[in-house]
Amino acid sequence: MCKKNLIAGQSGGPTAVINSSLYGIVSEARRHEDRIGKVYGMVNGIEGFLAGRTLDFDEALPGDALEGLKITPGAYLGSCRCKLPESLDDPMYPEIFRRFEEMNIGWFFYVGGNDSMDTVSKLSRYAEKIGSDIRVIGEPKTIDNDLVLTDHTPGYGSAARYVAQTVREIVLDANVYEKPSVTILEIMGRHAGWLTAAGALARKYKGDNPMLIYLPETAFDEEAFLQSVKNCLEKNCNVVVCVSEGIHDKEGTFICEYDSSVGTDNFGHKMLAGCGKYLENLVRSRLNIKARSVEFNVSQRCSAAMLSATDQAEAVMAGEFGVRAALDGVTGRMVSFVRKEDADGSVHMECGLEDVNDICNKEKTVPAEWITADGTDVTDDFIRYAAPLIQGVVTVPMGEDGLPLFVSRK
Amino acid sequence: MCKKNLIAGQSGGPTAVINSSLYGIVSEARRHEDRIGKVYGMVNGIEGFLAGRTLDFDEALPGDALEGLKITPGAYLGSCRCKLPESLDDPMYPEIFRRFEEMNIGWFFYVGGNDSMDTVSKLSRYAEKIGSDIRVIGEPKTIDNDLVLTDHTPGYGSAARYVAQTVREIVLDANVYEKPSVTILEIMGRHAGWLTAAGALARKYKGDNPMLIYLPETAFDEEAFLQSVKNCLEKNCNVVVCVSEGIHDKEGTFICEYDSSVGTDNFGHKMLAGCGKYLENLVRSRLNIKARSVEFNVSQRCSAAMLSATDQAEAVMAGEFGVRAALDGVTGRMVSFVRKEDADGSVHMECGLEDVNDICNKEKTVPAEWITADGTDVTDDFIRYAAPLIQGVVTVPMGEDGLPLFVSRK
Repeated sequence: MCKKNLIAGQSGGPTAVINSSLYGIVSEARRHEDRIGKVYGMVNGIEGFLAGRTLDFDEALPGDALEGLKITPGAYLGSCRCKLPESLDDPMYPEIFRRFEEMNIGWFFYVGGNDSMDTVSKLSRYAEKIGSDIRVIGEPKTIDNDLVLTDHTPGYGSAARYVAQTVREIVLDANVYEKPSVTILEIMGRHAGWLTAAGALARKYKGDNPMLIYLPETAFDEEAFLQSVKNCLEKNCNVVVCVSEGIHDKEGTFICEYDSSVGTDNFGHKMLAGCGKYLENLVRSRLNIKARSVEFNVSQRCSAAMLSATDQAEAVMAGEFGVRAALDGVTGRMVSFVRKEDADGSVHMECGLEDVNDICNKEKTVPAEWITADGTDVTDDFIRYAAPLIQGVVTVPMGEDGLPLFVSRK
Repeated sequence: MCKKNLIAGQSGGPTAVINSSLYGIVSEARRHEDRIGKVYGMVNGIEGFLAGRTLDFDEALPGDALEGLKITPGAYLGSCRCKLPESLDDPMYPEIFRRFEEMNIGWFFYVGGNDSMDTVSKLSRYAEKIGSDIRVIGEPKTIDNDLVLTDHTPGYGSAARYVAQTVREIVLDANVYEKPSVTILEIMGRHAGWLTAAGALARKYKGDNPMLIYLPETAFDEEAFLQSVKNCLEKNCNVVVCVSEGIHDKEGTFICEYDSSVGTDNFGHKMLAGCGKYLENLVRSRLNIKARSVEFNVSQRCSAAMLSATDQAEAVMAGEFGVRAALDGVTGRMVSFVRKEDADGSVHMECGLEDVNDICNKEKTVPAEWITADGTDVTDDFIRYAAPLIQGVVTVPMGEDGLPLFVSRK
């Protein structure tokens, strides 16, 4: 059998373990030298590939240098936000496959979220249309955890661990002074509240901070929020609240669009602040109480300091599984996770395969039954779901400068 | 000799290792059972003490439970921001010493920054005035690193490590897309740029990101800043900039005051927020380029995930040293660090003692010769100074929930 080459790309926003998935793909490919020749990477996804930008992993990360991928956040190959044309008759498709052919590609892997699965869908359908035997596999990735047909997505566990641990640390920070205070934590998630919900994992006992959690799955009401904060302040001097960046009222208006209290800049442009800043000002002015807000921002998706060992191992597993599936002839599928409960009550994930056409351009939100009726918290069912995903610490190797030995493209 | 009791308090903003200093004090005190009876803690500093709020460490953290302090950020005892009356004739002083006498206190330790050293100064002077033999010792603490007469302060190393590692991570995140971008990182430091300067430690090679670093020690000029950003964009598609929250123009106006609303805290300090957001908007509107800003916020002072082992060990050492000094009869002094260079070029710290009256209410800023002439960077001298302080990783024990096993008061 004539050997073919493999190419992998990364797409969409980075996560702490998107490179672990890449590691799984490349390391598994290297174990199949009998069938797989070169292992290539697309630089900056399909967009960079179309511009002729690729790398050879044997040159870029030979031998054990590949291990560095497992602890490097960001996207080693670079990413893009590129949606392929809807019509498979577009000249872009023959162009992509001409390049595939030029590089003797037999297998294409794309690591990403919703939009990336759309690319997998289109390229696998085009391959079928032209009778190409190139196998196209999607590898899931997103801190938002919003892909359907999988228990969860790689990247979510580490981001959830970041949120849970950081919330626990900030609760300590908030408890330092006696003076009553409210701390608003703004967490990523425009339409799905999975990551904000992970704030609940920070609690050490029932009723502990964060005392309130607001997800975009339910409508947010200012007056009800202020009343809830007041109720909490009667029980605890320092109240910590987690909110999704995407919370909105029942008309669908984002809370962050409510006002311009942060002002306009010298050019008259509105300075957009997040919903956290808005709620901080609301609490201060309406309840006359010390308030502050913290926007978790990009560290929740790019910190290696709070990697979940479980998340990392699963990302590697998904990458490896995808390669074996592709070698078996599978195409147009995304690797999924299926939850298995062990006899001792612990859980583990097994890999499955799902049709990308059923996944792309869909969004999985937190189920209504995992949110309390008043919309201010998540239920124990969520805790049982999410807790196993954040387990385990990863020891990140440090260089002589005392900082992580991340790998990057030259 | 009749045994006396020891009491320790914490004051000012929390850090990642303020509890390590406390650990050093309490553990060293326990090694001197022949002279020290009970070891007490003031809850919420001198303010809580005046309200009768104390704890007994043998009950709160008996035996090995004390170890948990070393990895717990925040202030275990709680803190306060209380400035004692200027006049030693104020009735508050006899009240404090009456309570000291009631608890048979022989030694008082206060862990804090400038304002806390002011408390140490006043109480030691009052003790002298009334002929009390109570020994009063200051233990340095601040992420700002702005105390004079010490090489650096406990808390700075871990905060600097947080800044350096987080900047390195965000640089990876910024490099993910090909589209030119500017990322502004706003780091704590109103008057002293030590922590912002630590962003320079994130560089892997000369010219690496962060390409620009602005400290409050030099005047900030908008037009020069925009020109510098433009020059950097010619060399690098993704430019990362570190700015101190306290940067100001040559008239002394804070950049964050250019258009943000600000308040004042209990001490009349201006509450700063938003120079990062302001510069983000400035870059976007003036350079017409993708821009974002990240405010590092409280995690830089309360994250246990990036503890510097060096910082932690030094904080413990300072606590221990202070107890031995107090037992030797020292009073009215702050424990300081003196840098010693070893034969192999590595450095270590030895403890010294400095008169708190020479320390309190003063501020040490980054020396002008450690800032480049154009005010956009720090020199290699700063790197040589700061690099040893962030070395070493601390393994934080995790609980069954997968999160750090912090200790807290019941």
